Amino acid sequence: MSKTWISNASKKFTPKNLEEISLPIKEDLIKVEEVIQSHLKSTVGFVTSISEYVIRNGGKRIRPVLCLFSSRLAGASGQKVFDSAAAMEFFHTATLMHDDVVDNAKLRRGKPSANATWGNHVAVLVGDFFYCQASSLLVGTDNLRIIKRITEAMLATTEGEILEISKSNDLSTTEEDYLKIIHDKTAVLMSASCEIGGILGNVSEAYIQALAEYGRCLGIAFQLADDILDYISENEKFGKVTGTDLKEGKLTLPLIVALRHCNDSEKRIIKDTLIAETVEQESLKRIISIINQYEGLDYTVKLAKTYLNRAKESLQIFKPTLEREALLRLTDFVIERNQ
Amino acid sequence: MSKTWISNASKKFTPKNLEEISLPIKEDLIKVEEVIQSHLKSTVGFVTSISEYVIRNGGKRIRPVLCLFSSRLAGASGQKVFDSAAAMEFFHTATLMHDDVVDNAKLRRGKPSANATWGNHVAVLVGDFFYCQASSLLVGTDNLRIIKRITEAMLATTEGEILEISKSNDLSTTEEDYLKIIHDKTAVLMSASCEIGGILGNVSEAYIQALAEYGRCLGIAFQLADDILDYISENEKFGKVTGTDLKEGKLTLPLIVALRHCNDSEKRIIKDTLIAETVEQESLKRIISIINQYEGLDYTVKLAKTYLNRAKESLQIFKPTLEREALLRLTDFVIERNQ
Repeated sequence: MSKTWISNASKKFTPKNLEEISLPIKEDLIKVEEVIQSHLKSTVGFVTSISEYVIRNGGKRIRPVLCLFSSRLAGASGQKVFDSAAAMEFFHTATLMHDDVVDNAKLRRGKPSANATWGNHVAVLVGDFFYCQASSLLVGTDNLRIIKRITEAMLATTEGEILEISKSNDLSTTEEDYLKIIHDKTAVLMSASCEIGGILGNVSEAYIQALAEYGRCLGIAFQLADDILDYISENEKFGKVTGTDLKEGKLTLPLIVALRHCNDSEKRIIKDTLIAETVEQESLKRIISIINQYEGLDYTVKLAKTYLNRAKESLQIFKPTLEREALLRLTDFVIERNQ
Repeated sequence: MSKTWISNASKKFTPKNLEEISLPIKEDLIKVEEVIQSHLKSTVGFVTSISEYVIRNGGKRIRPVLCLFSSRLAGASGQKVFDSAAAMEFFHTATLMHDDVVDNAKLRRGKPSANATWGNHVAVLVGDFFYCQASSLLVGTDNLRIIKRITEAMLATTEGEILEISKSNDLSTTEEDYLKIIHDKTAVLMSASCEIGGILGNVSEAYIQALAEYGRCLGIAFQLADDILDYISENEKFGKVTGTDLKEGKLTLPLIVALRHCNDSEKRIIKDTLIAETVEQESLKRIISIINQYEGLDYTVKLAKTYLNRAKESLQIFKPTLEREALLRLTDFVIERNQ
């Protein structure tokens, strides 16, 4: 079991950490926030209210941060950068809202999800509203290459989500399948967030591709970390491991590794838990002990670190600057965060 | 009650009628169908299967027909026209899939809906897949004006859907509210389908706007006709009026007109039916008789005809051609179809 991971996690690295890394672009982030706020206004009153709730209860703004630092690294600035960064957050939020419908999720970031609060119909349509606002913002850049890149990225993200549900409960899911899923559903959009910066800066292809590669590797590591956290983070209130992925029938890498090595009776335990209507804390603990026995978490941490190193390496063609340093430090945030 | 309407409807005008109108563009429609088919392929096998099912069980292809005739009228032809026409069908199908989730619809065009067959999660994601394919096709035209126009249209369509659900069961819904809803949710996309033709033809603004106005008025009339049909068309198998809108709490114009004139006890009957868990055929018949008493259907038919005349008038700036004639005949199809 990955003791280092846990000891790092126990240091309670929080979004504050990301906030510190983002200090150099604080003013830009405020501009992005203004763009986001001004695009929450719908002609229908309650869409505005719900959108504000969803965005306020929002995430860490990692995609805007990636977009802003990448833009600076490529020498781009101004309104198009802020609009693109806001668009990436809107796209991300739209996918989250639709995912919550797909997964029938009750909670999102510890608060009731939009579908749980107002029903699937609202979550679907407000998700669509976010997609449309994201598209509007990107189209407003008048940059066809950016529009094309994001359209491709959105298609890949959607297909990644679909591939994931098509593989749910499937014990024959391989590491390769899994990596394709997390690449498509998570890494592609992070990669595009960085690539846009390069495109807006109008730098040479090698620099644009370096930023894209950084985002791609960071994104894969980010999802690997998420999938590890799902097995080790405890619900603060009840002190229970959440194990959400397992409950949703999602086979993530720690479990895939365990399945690769475990015996038939252990495999049976995993299978029964995956298909059961409710997962008892007891079953979850047994599965975690099987995962630990076959070093599923260690293996996953190691792979995440490999990807983070690749992310760092891809930035070597840029000269050392405050922005490059910030993107390098972001790789540490990915592996050290606890949410 | 609109006897003419019913007598026309009883002639069983069917999509064959539309097929006849579309004969001059038969080969173009085959090209559009090829584009649609080639964009149903997903990297995930079951998405391809479900997409094929949804498209095969598909609609009348009115939006592609509008786009093709408008393009010809504006002198545009070639692959960009076929791609744009296919994109409009994909956008439309995407909104239908999400609508079915929103309305919890069991049937779509007489066959089990995607959400009823495979669940909400599949319908949401395959709907997203269609959105993405539509965007890809439009972005592929390299025409920023088209991309902008459709992005705006999709936002309006989404907001129209949302406005509609926000007004459900609301007895104070006015004719003005209703017209805004059907303009946004239906007419805007039909208008854009026509406008694209003008943009691709690169004709003067007056001609582009004439096509857009034609599509807008046709779209409003199309939805008015749909909302009438919901009260007069009978389920072929059971011989019952469907009254789907009423069951979903949607106040359409025939009912709004009745509410404007009826007395308090009639209003109570309507209200009770709108909020009831199940709507008996008996209640539906009572409401239809209230609607007829206050000529709600006649009023709606008259308004549809007004819009169709406006649609026809807007084409007067084009010289008489086979294409103009076809678009004029399409206005008859809208009012005479029975599905």
